[in-house]
Amino acid sequence: MTDILDKPSTHRSDSASPPNEAEIVLGPTQYGKAETHVVRITRGTPRHEIRDVTVTSQLRGDLEAMHSEGDNAHCVATDTQKNTVFGFAQTHGVKSPEQLLLALSDHFTSEFEWIHGGRWEAEEHAWERIDDHDHCFVESKQEKRTAVVVTDGEKRTVISGFYDLTVLKSTGSGFEGYPKDRFTTLQETQDRILSTDIATRWRYSTTDVDFDEVYRSVKKILLSKFTDHYSRALQETLHHMGSAVLTAHPEIDEIKFSCPNKHHFVYDLGFAGIENNLETHHAADRPFGLIEATLQRKGAPTADDAWMGINGFC
Amino acid sequence: MTDILDKPSTHRSDSASPPNEAEIVLGPTQYGKAETHVVRITRGTPRHEIRDVTVTSQLRGDLEAMHSEGDNAHCVATDTQKNTVFGFAQTHGVKSPEQLLLALSDHFTSEFEWIHGGRWEAEEHAWERIDDHDHCFVESKQEKRTAVVVTDGEKRTVISGFYDLTVLKSTGSGFEGYPKDRFTTLQETQDRILSTDIATRWRYSTTDVDFDEVYRSVKKILLSKFTDHYSRALQETLHHMGSAVLTAHPEIDEIKFSCPNKHHFVYDLGFAGIENNLETHHAADRPFGLIEATLQRKGAPTADDAWMGINGFC
Amino acid sequence: MTDILDKPSTHRSDSASPPNEAEIVLGPTQYGKAETHVVRITRGTPRHEIRDVTVTSQLRGDLEAMHSEGDNAHCVATDTQKNTVFGFAQTHGVKSPEQLLLALSDHFTSEFEWIHGGRWEAEEHAWERIDDHDHCFVESKQEKRTAVVVTDGEKRTVISGFYDLTVLKSTGSGFEGYPKDRFTTLQETQDRILSTDIATRWRYSTTDVDFDEVYRSVKKILLSKFTDHYSRALQETLHHMGSAVLTAHPEIDEIKFSCPNKHHFVYDLGFAGIENNLETHHAADRPFGLIEATLQRKGAPTADDAWMGINGFC
Amino acid sequence: MTDILDKPSTHRSDSASPPNEAEIVLGPTQYGKAETHVVRITRGTPRHEIRDVTVTSQLRGDLEAMHSEGDNAHCVATDTQKNTVFGFAQTHGVKSPEQLLLALSDHFTSEFEWIHGGRWEAEEHAWERIDDHDHCFVESKQEKRTAVVVTDGEKRTVISGFYDLTVLKSTGSGFEGYPKDRFTTLQETQDRILSTDIATRWRYSTTDVDFDEVYRSVKKILLSKFTDHYSRALQETLHHMGSAVLTAHPEIDEIKFSCPNKHHFVYDLGFAGIENNLETHHAADRPFGLIEATLQRKGAPTADDAWMGINGFC
Repeated sequence: MTDILDKPSTHRSDSASPPNEAEIVLGPTQYGKAETHVVRITRGTPRHEIRDVTVTSQLRGDLEAMHSEGDNAHCVATDTQKNTVFGFAQTHGVKSPEQLLLALSDHFTSEFEWIHGGRWEAEEHAWERIDDHDHCFVESKQEKRTAVVVTDGEKRTVISGFYDLTVLKSTGSGFEGYPKDRFTTLQETQDRILSTDIATRWRYSTTDVDFDEVYRSVKKILLSKFTDHYSRALQETLHHMGSAVLTAHPEIDEIKFSCPNKHHFVYDLGFAGIENNLETHHAADRPFGLIEATLQRKGAPTADDAWMGINGFC
Repeated sequence: MTDILDKPSTHRSDSASPPNEAEIVLGPTQYGKAETHVVRITRGTPRHEIRDVTVTSQLRGDLEAMHSEGDNAHCVATDTQKNTVFGFAQTHGVKSPEQLLLALSDHFTSEFEWIHGGRWEAEEHAWERIDDHDHCFVESKQEKRTAVVVTDGEKRTVISGFYDLTVLKSTGSGFEGYPKDRFTTLQETQDRILSTDIATRWRYSTTDVDFDEVYRSVKKILLSKFTDHYSRALQETLHHMGSAVLTAHPEIDEIKFSCPNKHHFVYDLGFAGIENNLETHHAADRPFGLIEATLQRKGAPTADDAWMGINGFC
Repeated sequence: MTDILDKPSTHRSDSASPPNEAEIVLGPTQYGKAETHVVRITRGTPRHEIRDVTVTSQLRGDLEAMHSEGDNAHCVATDTQKNTVFGFAQTHGVKSPEQLLLALSDHFTSEFEWIHGGRWEAEEHAWERIDDHDHCFVESKQEKRTAVVVTDGEKRTVISGFYDLTVLKSTGSGFEGYPKDRFTTLQETQDRILSTDIATRWRYSTTDVDFDEVYRSVKKILLSKFTDHYSRALQETLHHMGSAVLTAHPEIDEIKFSCPNKHHFVYDLGFAGIENNLETHHAADRPFGLIEATLQRKGAPTADDAWMGINGFC
Repeated sequence: MTDILDKPSTHRSDSASPPNEAEIVLGPTQYGKAETHVVRITRGTPRHEIRDVTVTSQLRGDLEAMHSEGDNAHCVATDTQKNTVFGFAQTHGVKSPEQLLLALSDHFTSEFEWIHGGRWEAEEHAWERIDDHDHCFVESKQEKRTAVVVTDGEKRTVISGFYDLTVLKSTGSGFEGYPKDRFTTLQETQDRILSTDIATRWRYSTTDVDFDEVYRSVKKILLSKFTDHYSRALQETLHHMGSAVLTAHPEIDEIKFSCPNKHHFVYDLGFAGIENNLETHHAADRPFGLIEATLQRKGAPTADDAWMGINGFC
């Protein structure tokens, strides 16, 4: 190997120096290690426990010189962040995704004085026992659990949620009374399939929460409230579901939804002389309706910054 | 619009005529409509039933002129195949994916004299009731069910299966006694995590089967046999699981597996002075082990052709 | 079919009425049709033009009754939005993704008095001619172009961008001088592979732009500036690239990046007595570094709201 | 950690022993390491070369005891296979994906006497230089190159190919003359969009080939022949394209295609009084037509076994 590339020290004068750089400033920035996949077994007794989380850690703070001058003195390596995730999974355990993220947030913001905050995110894969076996598990894929902790100085915001919980009602849904213009061809109906993949995130007003217990409760409420009414639109159903969560859980200040309206079209078989009484449907992929809505506890503080960077939530 | 492209009739002399075409022959061919997504509701009573299948229909037969001469007289349009899938879902119902595919196979091979066979495939999305509700469902995503019917003249072969049933044992698995060469760095172990996404397909010796019932039984056997032994390698475990299926189900002649060995590496935290007693693991994505194996009933006829085109099964 | 489900009118009393609903308010909401896939051919002459865009339309405004009361009088159907997208693609053409989105925004906010704004997004598939053919094209997949228009009353914000432009430098990159703590194991280096999938979005200060021309220019600048320096970290390289864009394009006020650091690890083959002089690398999938940064024109107005809902940009 | 799980040695009697195991035999089996991602830089001069391949290695042979008895004496660890892939990438280089796979095949079948064959597969990511730079590259994603080597004793079969080369003709395609039955609703046309993602694989009659050169030539022929005729069906077009390849390349005995017919429906805007002269189309996702066809050199030996396990080729 006879590379003759110059050494870095002699290259530094080539570094980014547009003529009028003074007019450009660094805006919001964060960096870290994404999707560290940790599987934590608790094996003190023959009956093992398992938690399986994919963790993203991103730091914010005084990072100006790192970007504009290539000075890495403030750059806690993303590799170090990864090692820390594994270390904390071992020493602190994974009691819940939220608890692990809060511990990581506290660590990084206290360990490095120039780190003033950050964003920590986790996705959990859920496992259940096979026939109540001590150490054999099967993954339960009904939905994917998510957790986000955003820290800004002293303020820590916890947003929990899940996505891809797919539900369907085969009747008890209609759509009527909407405005018509020259581009409207849709027919009104009092009986259609309503189906969606529920993606939801809720924001806590506190960190003093049994996160696993509230998770189970919110999922149960959402499923239950999906079933108990005639739906005049997915918008109404989401409002109904979200209101029930805020009513039942005073520790939650806000809940958001981003839910596709997965269209199921009755397939007209008249060309073949076959009657189709709302039985055989074509399930379409794209385009799809997309309903995004937020329910908030009146008077509670909002936290718009904490929602930045979450895909598809307005 | 003032297109001046010549009309097709005047173009035909331009069609594919390589100089020595006589030396080239048409080999295996099939064509059809892929992934028609049918959701069939049975709604004779307030308690609805739902079956949700994505169906691919492909025809084989005397298709030479279609390919070599652009003569579509034998080309049952893929759009017609799609309409037929919806039509049969309505008139025949979806009692099981396999029954729908068999009905489609019988239809196309009897309706069109030049169609001598084909391949029909389905994937099923499973739904369960929310709180035993009459018409509200939540999708159960633990695994995806598959079915294939391959017809060749009078012979119909049914291959059922599923994929993405993810299982893990947190102990009770090791790997020892393998050969070592200069490229071997792996350490032997008597205690490791074993995890895989079970993809399996089994071939019936008959079509006189309660396909739903056998499906439930095979899944139950595979899960149960995953748990009941110390695994010396994923190969041994698959052999153990597959043998149990063939033993319990005389109507099944063959079962295949294509299963990743999803590596979970104990994360060495010695650099930080932290002990990790097989508790904190890094779950790796790629590369992964890949084990493919077949168990067959001794003396039963094989059906290699029917397995063509199934991804990742040897 | 003998469904005995009650009719909607008799169900309305069942609709969402949690006991203390008064304490819950509707927060940010938007809804529409996602991913309408339009392929627009211009065929006035034998030499056709093609634009291929996937369009999402979401409306905002006075939508309270739609959510809380199931009153759809303000609910411009998502199906109508889809029809409008196709209609405008025909009547207005697709001169650029941004121009189509601006036209849709103007239409919906002027046609319906209760619609005060919204969000329109497009993704473009790029095609190039095969051998300069008049009507035969091959898709160019080097990156995916994106466009977003966010309208709030009189204010329209245009954010253009792309993602998945994958670049790599096989030398001319290092990483040194970072802080070390007990979790740090990474070794410093002056020679490593640097690779990323560039995802970037830039915000215009005006709508009076030749969007196609600026797109080509920004892509060209980013590629060029990726090559011209020794990189002391991906953060420095992004700052360098983004500054060059703002310097060259006064009509752009802000540019953001969300870029993975795609790790390429030199594979130590010492166990087999093979020397590896930075030649053979393992390209890892996960975890990966993730660098997000913003460059802004000093003194220019910001537009944080317009960035909401964009995945992975802080 | 106080696990009390019994040690493996005392567990062996529990291993897989269904009562009538004698009636079950092991069928086709192979195992190995999938998707080892190797990036190989050649850096002898300042002008670097790059090859980027994902390699799967699977071994076949006398593997009975490994499966039925948990005896790993013949189990060349998948980890060893991975190390070997990296080792050979360094010592042999990556002159082409096919050459690397052939070298791996020769190694494993000669190094271990019980390994009688196997299957090696690679996928290549293509890179091009940015502005002819010495060591900066941008990934070219127009299509993905594939290679398979199947070895059975002395016989080695090489199958090359690619997938996801997306092409479209905006006119010069029709569909007429097909049979009509009660399920037929499709209208005949002499002018439609024809579009597909070309997935193709071709089998060589020899290994004495400049694989990179033939790859470039086959791709060029396929693109060129896509453009030069009026297409009466995708079947005719594939036959035309494949015949040209076999005519130009005597070292290729067989070529297969598996190509979707990506439907583009003219969107009827009559409801809004807007004329649409084949200009504005809806590009549908599913269902899609699926055409699979094989062209063979007359009289050449076939190799059906080598095609097993390739997804979607009949």
